[in-house]
Amino acid sequence: MTTAEVRQRILAANEAAAASLRERFRRDGTLVLNLISSPGSGKTSLLEAAVPRLGAALRIAALEGDVATENDARRLRARGIPAAQILTGGACHLDARQIEKALGQVEEDRLDVLFIENVGNLICPTSFDLGEDLKVALLSVTEGDDKPEKYPGIFSRAGATVLTKSDLLPHVRFDVHAVLDRIRVLNPEARVLLTSAVSGDGVEAFCDLVRQRLASKRAAVATA
Amino acid sequence: MTTAEVRQRILAANEAAAASLRERFRRDGTLVLNLISSPGSGKTSLLEAAVPRLGAALRIAALEGDVATENDARRLRARGIPAAQILTGGACHLDARQIEKALGQVEEDRLDVLFIENVGNLICPTSFDLGEDLKVALLSVTEGDDKPEKYPGIFSRAGATVLTKSDLLPHVRFDVHAVLDRIRVLNPEARVLLTSAVSGDGVEAFCDLVRQRLASKRAAVATA
Repeated sequence: MTTAEVRQRILAANEAAAASLRERFRRDGTLVLNLISSPGSGKTSLLEAAVPRLGAALRIAALEGDVATENDARRLRARGIPAAQILTGGACHLDARQIEKALGQVEEDRLDVLFIENVGNLICPTSFDLGEDLKVALLSVTEGDDKPEKYPGIFSRAGATVLTKSDLLPHVRFDVHAVLDRIRVLNPEARVLLTSAVSGDGVEAFCDLVRQRLASKRAAVATA
Repeated sequence: MTTAEVRQRILAANEAAAASLRERFRRDGTLVLNLISSPGSGKTSLLEAAVPRLGAALRIAALEGDVATENDARRLRARGIPAAQILTGGACHLDARQIEKALGQVEEDRLDVLFIENVGNLICPTSFDLGEDLKVALLSVTEGDDKPEKYPGIFSRAGATVLTKSDLLPHVRFDVHAVLDRIRVLNPEARVLLTSAVSGDGVEAFCDLVRQRLASKRAAVATA
């Protein structure tokens, strides 16, 4: 068996598990967001800022992928939501079977929203479907405005891109309009939001996106 | 053949190619640095700042790994050194055979220093030996001081860690001493430098590290 064949087999096994997760999330009316970014782009900080605003009206949980440490799950539990850490022990992405396994730790009842924070990596997580409704790419303004061109895989597949750390814009060279243009070329339908977990700017817009996508999913399930 | 066996076979093939590269670099007295970091940590910016200081006395070249675009090689050629782009077309790391192939594009004569800028990824490049003398990890102060604990693989293997974007320290929460402690736990021998390609702080210290390592390698080869 060649390397390419092994890769095909791994992806096919993942697709099967992801399809079963997607059916389960459809049945439960759970909106699932798969957050993908470089290390340190601010995935956990965005969720820390958004969770209190999304409020007690929604049942929210988070699954946190990391190579090592329980830090991120701890940070989100401190915001009052169930959160489980998935430690990959060196692996560079989450896969659907890890999500299946970890769900039991956060799902007391049917969830409204499940946030999956993937391993910090702009490349490998892109190929692995986790049964999500939406891949959300995060890009911090400190990483440079050339990143959509350099990592086209994620920016063409993400239904939304969240630009983070906008409070640092006065201190770095980052052309927001150039990034919008570059993302539009790759993915004309993608939503792009400019946010700062420090100042709170744009966090409400992210919450609105979550609420809208949840309402659309519920409406689609109701009419199916 | 299982996935684990395929991975073993891939790594073994890479080891053989890396050993042959290492012998070639030893014979030529070329110091090779393999730069590994998240996307946007400032690998190219560090080299842009360092190359003019290392000066015309040294024959320097760079190999630039990226998923897409020739941007980085162009930026370094503008600094007057030969630089070749290695496009991985989606793959998340460089391997030794790609280095072997690309060397012909930058090696007119024996090189003193070869910088290899790996694909922006803190995980996958860690396992692939490129025949280098030193893995250099970069961590920008905007990524957070928790990263050595979250990505122990690279920080335990890197002989040097370059903290970048120190000019942004007044605007972010980043505890330099905590990072030093965390790296020391993983790798007591590692050198850690604090730098800014914008202000130039610490760039000379990085150049000194390069000069010292080159002198040590030449001395070791001479007495062998």
